[in-house]
Amino acid sequence: MTIDTALSRLTDLLGDRLSTSDADLALHGQNETYYADTPPHGVAYPETTEEVSEILKICHDENCPVTAYGAASSLEGQHLAIRGGISLDMNRMNRVLAVNAEDMNAVVQPGLTRIALNEELRATGLFFSVDPGADASMGGMAATRASGTTAVRYGTMRDNILAMEAVMADGTVIRTGTKARKSSTGYDLNHLLIGSEGTLGIITELTVKLHGIPEAISAATCRFESVEDAVNCVILTIQSGLPMARIELLDEMMVRGFNQYAGAGLPEKPHLFLEFHGSPAGVTEQMETFAALAGDFGAEAMKTATTTEDRNALWAMRHKAHYASAALGAGKHIWPTDVCVPISQLAEAVVQAQRDAVAMGLTCTIVGHVGDGNFHAGLSVDPGNADEMARAKLFTGKLAETALRLGGTVSGEHGIGIGKQGYMDAEHGPALAYMRAIKQGFDPKNILNPGKMLPDNH
Amino acid sequence: MTIDTALSRLTDLLGDRLSTSDADLALHGQNETYYADTPPHGVAYPETTEEVSEILKICHDENCPVTAYGAASSLEGQHLAIRGGISLDMNRMNRVLAVNAEDMNAVVQPGLTRIALNEELRATGLFFSVDPGADASMGGMAATRASGTTAVRYGTMRDNILAMEAVMADGTVIRTGTKARKSSTGYDLNHLLIGSEGTLGIITELTVKLHGIPEAISAATCRFESVEDAVNCVILTIQSGLPMARIELLDEMMVRGFNQYAGAGLPEKPHLFLEFHGSPAGVTEQMETFAALAGDFGAEAMKTATTTEDRNALWAMRHKAHYASAALGAGKHIWPTDVCVPISQLAEAVVQAQRDAVAMGLTCTIVGHVGDGNFHAGLSVDPGNADEMARAKLFTGKLAETALRLGGTVSGEHGIGIGKQGYMDAEHGPALAYMRAIKQGFDPKNILNPGKMLPDNH
Repeated sequence: MTIDTALSRLTDLLGDRLSTSDADLALHGQNETYYADTPPHGVAYPETTEEVSEILKICHDENCPVTAYGAASSLEGQHLAIRGGISLDMNRMNRVLAVNAEDMNAVVQPGLTRIALNEELRATGLFFSVDPGADASMGGMAATRASGTTAVRYGTMRDNILAMEAVMADGTVIRTGTKARKSSTGYDLNHLLIGSEGTLGIITELTVKLHGIPEAISAATCRFESVEDAVNCVILTIQSGLPMARIELLDEMMVRGFNQYAGAGLPEKPHLFLEFHGSPAGVTEQMETFAALAGDFGAEAMKTATTTEDRNALWAMRHKAHYASAALGAGKHIWPTDVCVPISQLAEAVVQAQRDAVAMGLTCTIVGHVGDGNFHAGLSVDPGNADEMARAKLFTGKLAETALRLGGTVSGEHGIGIGKQGYMDAEHGPALAYMRAIKQGFDPKNILNPGKMLPDNH
Repeated sequence: MTIDTALSRLTDLLGDRLSTSDADLALHGQNETYYADTPPHGVAYPETTEEVSEILKICHDENCPVTAYGAASSLEGQHLAIRGGISLDMNRMNRVLAVNAEDMNAVVQPGLTRIALNEELRATGLFFSVDPGADASMGGMAATRASGTTAVRYGTMRDNILAMEAVMADGTVIRTGTKARKSSTGYDLNHLLIGSEGTLGIITELTVKLHGIPEAISAATCRFESVEDAVNCVILTIQSGLPMARIELLDEMMVRGFNQYAGAGLPEKPHLFLEFHGSPAGVTEQMETFAALAGDFGAEAMKTATTTEDRNALWAMRHKAHYASAALGAGKHIWPTDVCVPISQLAEAVVQAQRDAVAMGLTCTIVGHVGDGNFHAGLSVDPGNADEMARAKLFTGKLAETALRLGGTVSGEHGIGIGKQGYMDAEHGPALAYMRAIKQGFDPKNILNPGKMLPDNH
C-alpha cells in the first residue's frame, strides 16, 4: 500500500498515459500565484470515465492521493498535489458530447475549456455564459464554483450546471441532478459537488445551461473621480434593477497596470467597464438609463465600444488583470484576494482595502465583479521577501475580517484551496463540523485532494 | 430513553407549549392528500432558535423523533410524524426579522408564510417571488425545495435563499450561506439543506432574495384546440427566450374542474394562463410576440386580465387546482403527481400521461408549470377503493418511468416524503449511497423526520 505500488499498477492500466517524466511532474507542480512548486509523483491521463474509475479504485486500494488537474488556472493552488500522489490530468477528456439546442444545454467533458465550448456553439445562436477570465476547464470551473464578469446577469457555475457525472473516492460512478430545469428529489448532490475542489469526487461529465446570444450587445467604459463614486454608481445601478450583463470596477492602480502592460492609454482614474445585452432598443434604453445614473456620480461621458472587435479587445484587456497587476513591479508575483460582500457594503469594503494597502506599504490593484459585490485586491509581492509576504498575509487577514464583518464571504469565486483554509472557521463556525462529516462519509481515506479546503484536511 | 421521558422533559422546558391534547395531535396528523392520519405523541411550539436547540438536545438524548411542521401544505406527507414523537410546530416563529431593501433580501423566520411576507413588503416595491399556490411557510418551502408558477422567471427556492440558520440533530446551531450574492468557500450546506425535508436539520431562519415589483404586469388566458398545440406553443415560447413570468397549462379536464368548482365559465379546451412582467412597452412587446407564436399553434385570441383584481382572481383560481380537481368526483381525494422533464420532451410526457389515465380508467386533471417542463397529473381517488388506489399507483409508476426515460425527475417541486421513496433508487442509483452517508453523518440516531425521503430511512 504505497504510492510506488499505485504508480506501478497505474502504468499497467494506462501504459504511457501514466507519466513520471521530470517535465510532466514539473509542469503539473506549477501555479499562477505564489505557492511553492509541488510536483506530483505521477501524472495520469485518463480518456474515459471508466478509466477514471479504475484509477480511483487503484489509488483507493493503495492510499495514493489523487488531485484533479485541468487548465491549472486556479488561484488558490487547488490543482497542486501537495501531498504527492497522482495529478489526474483531465485534458484528454475534452469533448462536447451533445448540444441540446431545444433544451438550451450542452453535455461536455471536464477537460473542455470554456472558450473551446463557445467556439463549438458558434453556429447555434447559444453561448455558455460563465467567464472567469482565464480559459479555465469546465471541470475546474465547476469544482471551484467559478463565476466572473457575466455572473451578475447569468449566474455563477452554481446556477449553470444542471447535472454531472462524477467518480467518487472508491471508483463508484454517480450522477447528480437531472436534465430537467428543476427537481425536488433527495439531497442536492449536484450543488454539493460544485465548489468541492476535487475533495469529494472527480467530475467526469457536466450538463450546463446555455443562453441565447442577445440580439444586441454594447460595451462601454466610464470614468469617475473617485472609487466611492464608481462604487456608489454600481450600487444604485443594481438596486434600480438594470439588467447589467457586465459591470466591472478598476481602481486607479489597476488602470495604471493596464496602461503599462497593454498600452491602454486610459486616464489613471477609477473606471467601470460595462456591457449591455438585449434587443437593440432595450440596449439603447439600458445605456441611457445607466448614463443618467453615472452622471449623478460625476462620471465622464461613457465611451462605447460599438464593434465586436472593440468589445472583444476591451474584455481581453480586462481578463489580463492578473498579468497587468504583475506588470506594476518587475519580477513580482500577484497575491490575489477575492472577497464578496452584500452590495450595500461594497463602498466601505473597497475603500477600506485601498486604505489598508497604503498603510501597509503594499502595491495593490483593485478590480471587481462589483455588480455581485465581489472584488479582488491584487497584491504585488516578491515571495523571497519575507517582510512583504508577511504584510500581504496581514492585509489578506484584515480584508477577510472586513468581509465577514460586513456579512460577506472570504471568497467570491477563487475558492479555498491552500490559501484560505485559515478563514474557514471564522466564516463557517460550527457548520464546519458538518462539512467534515461529509468529507469523512464520502472519502474516509482522504485520497481526494488531501490538504485542501478543510483546515484539518491533512 | 423513551418518547414518554422526552415528553416529560419537554414539558419542563416549554410548559403548555408542549401539547398532548387530542385536538392538537389530531390536527398535526392530517394532510392534504391521501395519506392516513398519523397524529404525533406531542406537539412542541418553540418561540426561539435556542428553544429549538434545547428541544433537539432532549429529543436526541431520548431518541425521540422530531418532525417539523409549518403550514401542513406539503403534498407528500413530509410534515407527518409517521414514526411518532414530536411534531415541531414552527408557527410561532413567524416574524420578518429584517428587510434589507438595499441588498434586496429579507431575513425571516420559518413559520412566516409567503403571503404574510409579501404583505410586509408592500411598501418597499419589492416582492418574494416563489409561489407554490398554497400559502406555505417559508421553512417548509425551503425544506421541500418548492417552486410554483413564477419559477420559470424568478427561480425556485433553490435559487432564492442566500443563507439560513438551522438546528442540527444534536441541537448544534449552524449558519449556511452568506448575505453576499455568491461564495466559493466550502461545501454548499445551504443547498444541501434546501430540499432535505427536515431530515438533516431544522431551519430556524432564512435570508431570501427579493425582486423589484415590475413596472407593468399583464395576465392573460389563451385557448388551444389540443394539449399538443398548447405544449408546443410553450416549448417555442421558452426556446425563443421570451421572459415569461408565468406560463401555466390546464388541460380540458382541469378546466372542467374550475368550471365546476369556481364557476369559471371557460370553454372546456386546453388553456394556457400567462403573466408578463416588464416595462409598459416591454410587456406590450412580449404579449405581441407571444400572441404571434400562439397564433401559429391555432390559439384563439388571448383574453387579457388588465386590472389587478382580474389578475388576482385568475391566479387565485389557478391556485385552487387541487380543490377543483377534487370537485370532479364527490368525496374524492386527489392523488397528486409532479414530474418534470426537459422542455423538449414535454409534449410527449403530457400526452402519454393523458392516454395512460384514460386507459386505466382514472379521472385525471393536468396542470403544470410548463415553462419549466413541470406538470401535475391529479388523480381523483377514493382511498377506500383498493382497486382505484392500485390503478393510481400503477399510473404514478408509469409516469415516473416516462419522466426518467425522458431525462427528467420524479418530482419537480413536491418532494419525496412518504409517497415517492420507491422511485429514489431509479432516479439516483449509486448516488443514493452518498445521500445515506450524509444522513448518517448528520443524524446518526435518525431522529429527524424518520421514515421520509431515503427509501431505507426507518
